[in-house]
Amino acid sequence: ELADAIGEFADANRAVEALFKDKHIMITAGPTREEIDPVRYISNHSSGKMGFAIAAVAQQLGAKVTLIAGPVSLPTPPNVIRKDINSAQDMLNAVHETIATQDIFIACAAVADYKVNKISAQKLKKQSQNITLTLSQNPDILSSVAFLEKPPFTVGFAAETQHVESYARAKLEKKKLNMIAANDVSNSTLGFNSDRNALIVLTSSSTQHLAPNNKSLLAMELMKLVHKEYSRS
Amino acid sequence: ELADAIGEFADANRAVEALFKDKHIMITAGPTREEIDPVRYISNHSSGKMGFAIAAVAQQLGAKVTLIAGPVSLPTPPNVIRKDINSAQDMLNAVHETIATQDIFIACAAVADYKVNKISAQKLKKQSQNITLTLSQNPDILSSVAFLEKPPFTVGFAAETQHVESYARAKLEKKKLNMIAANDVSNSTLGFNSDRNALIVLTSSSTQHLAPNNKSLLAMELMKLVHKEYSRS
Repeated sequence: ELADAIGEFADANRAVEALFKDKHIMITAGPTREEIDPVRYISNHSSGKMGFAIAAVAQQLGAKVTLIAGPVSLPTPPNVIRKDINSAQDMLNAVHETIATQDIFIACAAVADYKVNKISAQKLKKQSQNITLTLSQNPDILSSVAFLEKPPFTVGFAAETQHVESYARAKLEKKKLNMIAANDVSNSTLGFNSDRNALIVLTSSSTQHLAPNNKSLLAMELMKLVHKEYSRS
Repeated sequence: ELADAIGEFADANRAVEALFKDKHIMITAGPTREEIDPVRYISNHSSGKMGFAIAAVAQQLGAKVTLIAGPVSLPTPPNVIRKDINSAQDMLNAVHETIATQDIFIACAAVADYKVNKISAQKLKKQSQNITLTLSQNPDILSSVAFLEKPPFTVGFAAETQHVESYARAKLEKKKLNMIAANDVSNSTLGFNSDRNALIVLTSSSTQHLAPNNKSLLAMELMKLVHKEYSRS
């Protein structure tokens, strides 16, 4: 019986290891930085930990992983192709270089919605008491993939501080995503900068709560859900 | 003769070690972050490496060092009191808590000149194609110290991308500093994020160039100049 159990465990493990065998998965991670001048920039609190954990897990599950990373100080997971970028525009370019060959796209990066209209070539000097910075919308990388004629299976992320599930469902529908993973970043013990996270994973027909966990285990839970939905699609 | 040489070396070393014996030196380091909403912020490329190197050297030279640090990922130098802050306003508060007991103040931090007028309590949603961010001037920490009735010996930093020396001399005079150390951050092999730097050190009556060097050795050169000027003041 013990031998049977071990055999079953080994089989299950091999099955899990092969979940994404030979699949190409692209993952974006971390923040983007939008330059104001050579010294200053606008960014956000994304640490890249969730995206890097997903990349590591996807690779362990047999996938060929491309990780497009914003400025973070994290080591590259083993056997993952990593491309480092700064701005949202850079990320868009890097994504579309190889998106045509991807089976699955997981947009975990916290991409800046806006960029600075006129980047100053020189450091801006302190001037008047008040100044205004004019910002214009960045390209929407997630939509640019989901709206391709033959899009990969596309998973978005939503980091919200309120109305988490309803905002995420609206994003899922508007951007024609296969799946979206939402988290509440108003809780500082989870999400940005934390090693732990909790997710609400939505598809057009389902809602699943993944309980608080360290980001590696959570990434494994998420990738099992991705596999289930991807197999059906 | 060898014994003499060793003796001389040891004497010189003891003399250097005691340069700032029992002096209180406060050093600011790193960037500040100015929040836009719970997720986004404005910051700059300062890594904190120069300020942390100065703190380590000052402590080695016998000083009691207080290091006020913006958000950086650097270990605290041995036997240095460290206070972590985020915004320029936080830094101002932390500086003035103990500035009255300081002999020397070295403002190495890249403090944001402007903060966001209205910090949003919730993550801002993507809206129109263009938005404007209204910024207002932050308190000037360096001036707030230099203009004290009994100011410590005050050293400023100037990170510039053009007119480095003239901008720095103007800042020295306008802010009534004892000394200013200027560097050209348009050279990406030196300055921000680099382990190396070069400085132009100005007083009201002198200009000295410290050649490119790693930040620890450069910090030692700078602190010798600070000691020379401080002893005269």
